Amino acid sequence: MVTIKDIAQAANVSASTVSRVVSGNPKISKHTREKVKDTMKSLNYLPNQAARTLATKHSNTIGIIQKSGSIKDRQNPFVLDVLSGIFSECKNHGYSTIPTTNTQSKGIELEVQEMIHYHSVDGFIVLYSKKDNPIIDILKAHALPYVVIGKSLTNDEVIHIDNDNVRASELLTRHLIDKRHKNFLFIAESGDYEVVKDRIAGHLKAIEQESLVTDIVYFDKNREHIRSYFQGLIDYRALPSVVITSDTLLNHLVLSIFYELKLHIPTDIQTATFNDSYLNAFASPPQTTVDIYPKLLGEVAAESLLNVIQGREIVGFNKLIQTTIIERESTTTIQEV
Amino acid sequence: MVTIKDIAQAANVSASTVSRVVSGNPKISKHTREKVKDTMKSLNYLPNQAARTLATKHSNTIGIIQKSGSIKDRQNPFVLDVLSGIFSECKNHGYSTIPTTNTQSKGIELEVQEMIHYHSVDGFIVLYSKKDNPIIDILKAHALPYVVIGKSLTNDEVIHIDNDNVRASELLTRHLIDKRHKNFLFIAESGDYEVVKDRIAGHLKAIEQESLVTDIVYFDKNREHIRSYFQGLIDYRALPSVVITSDTLLNHLVLSIFYELKLHIPTDIQTATFNDSYLNAFASPPQTTVDIYPKLLGEVAAESLLNVIQGREIVGFNKLIQTTIIERESTTTIQEV
Repeated sequence: MVTIKDIAQAANVSASTVSRVVSGNPKISKHTREKVKDTMKSLNYLPNQAARTLATKHSNTIGIIQKSGSIKDRQNPFVLDVLSGIFSECKNHGYSTIPTTNTQSKGIELEVQEMIHYHSVDGFIVLYSKKDNPIIDILKAHALPYVVIGKSLTNDEVIHIDNDNVRASELLTRHLIDKRHKNFLFIAESGDYEVVKDRIAGHLKAIEQESLVTDIVYFDKNREHIRSYFQGLIDYRALPSVVITSDTLLNHLVLSIFYELKLHIPTDIQTATFNDSYLNAFASPPQTTVDIYPKLLGEVAAESLLNVIQGREIVGFNKLIQTTIIERESTTTIQEV
Repeated sequence: MVTIKDIAQAANVSASTVSRVVSGNPKISKHTREKVKDTMKSLNYLPNQAARTLATKHSNTIGIIQKSGSIKDRQNPFVLDVLSGIFSECKNHGYSTIPTTNTQSKGIELEVQEMIHYHSVDGFIVLYSKKDNPIIDILKAHALPYVVIGKSLTNDEVIHIDNDNVRASELLTRHLIDKRHKNFLFIAESGDYEVVKDRIAGHLKAIEQESLVTDIVYFDKNREHIRSYFQGLIDYRALPSVVITSDTLLNHLVLSIFYELKLHIPTDIQTATFNDSYLNAFASPPQTTVDIYPKLLGEVAAESLLNVIQGREIVGFNKLIQTTIIERESTTTIQEV
């Protein structure tokens, strides 16, 4: 078996230098690092991950902190895409992952405290941003690095990966204004999430610029509540021309209610939402959405966290991922009467 | 800091016995194991995971092998539920996970070979069952334990966790026959998956017992192909009274096509499918489905694999998880003419 000593001898460096290269120490020059890595390759050396963990006191594992909520919230295709980006980037760097699995906030806090206590992770990715989040307080109280997928709420030097949700929502609303919509309704997911606040802010910005009418209503994913709200709008002949939902799962529920109320899209009412996935592409009918590139969000989050863990230099703490409007059958240009 | 020596002294056993308890060695008697664990608890001993890895030559990590396919296939809520069960069980036992992330078979094979080569996992969970799967050949060629979520195709002593898909499909078809359906269509996902074959077999069993009519057609998730097929059935007035799809994502696409073709459910045609999730509960209209308890499938798979890894006795290599028919608005009793 090839050992670190053999590599050191062959590369003409000290064993501790080889060890530093293996552990990803940033203080090793590029020249030395490449020389050592080439030698490893030519001698067919496989660093033993467990030995590496002890040597570096790293577990080579990343904790993933999911948002609390019901099973339904957790089946969001957005989450699977973000996770897939994280898994892919972690695997490429030899890292494994431990996602939280509790659905209640308190349970998730306990999970995170356990991971910290048992040194089972080197850092965390938080999948959402929310004001006064006790999880962030726990992370701040410990020395472990973390990054957040979502908006930065303070000026701390913590990396946040986000879309420009204000701008994305403003552009979606403008797009609908260009299609001659004048009467809007924005259905927002309750729960005080920053992403929802940003999407409302962007929507209002576009509406105010054109002096148009909108309503912002907050709902849980409760079929009865949303149905009776729309039944009321039908009864009072107060239906908007287009309904924007803050998230794909809410949109999916709204479409199911419209089917029941026999409101046909796009003839009786129109719809648009955020977070593009197969759910929108195959919806009844296919939905106009904003693609927020969730897999890329996950990849950049994992890459950024690994940079922090491995002591690389950080350039910029706020990273914005692009967004794209995807137009489908659920919105059309309104014909002038 | 409390060491293994301190525990050994306090529990009046040898240090190697403590080490064996920590590594989950099955040769330690229950009495000794409990004595050592109680001593650990009373002395507040935290086994260092990395030290444990070296001592046991275990990485305390599980590889998860996903099925190949497009991004759309991967956003299946079924997958997220299975993963959530695996994550939860692994976390409870201090294990982290590395899921494959490639979408092509060849790429997944490489990922698996790398995980084996670098000793980065202690075992694998394969999320599907398929004949002549090269991944299974790779796993068989190495000493690493694995379990499969899906049907057992050989008599090898490999644990398979599955639903009784033949029986579940037979019961769903019988349920529809009881609702006086006489004209069936079964849309099957192409790709030679065992679960699809079983669901077709169960469907045919119920149909043959009653001498009824059915058609089995295979489709990829291709909107154009499925739409022109149904356009043909409409043109020839040959629509079935109910369409069963082998999977939720296919069902989702079929509903979108029916919306476009103005086929109203349940008045013009009815629908039912497998793998219950929010996608069916919130569909247009809500769908009759078979719940296959995917989170439980994941939990039992992870628990079984950890039993094999930790050398516990295995009782039974085929584990069946229950299924339940969930009735919703997409199917109703047909009125006699």
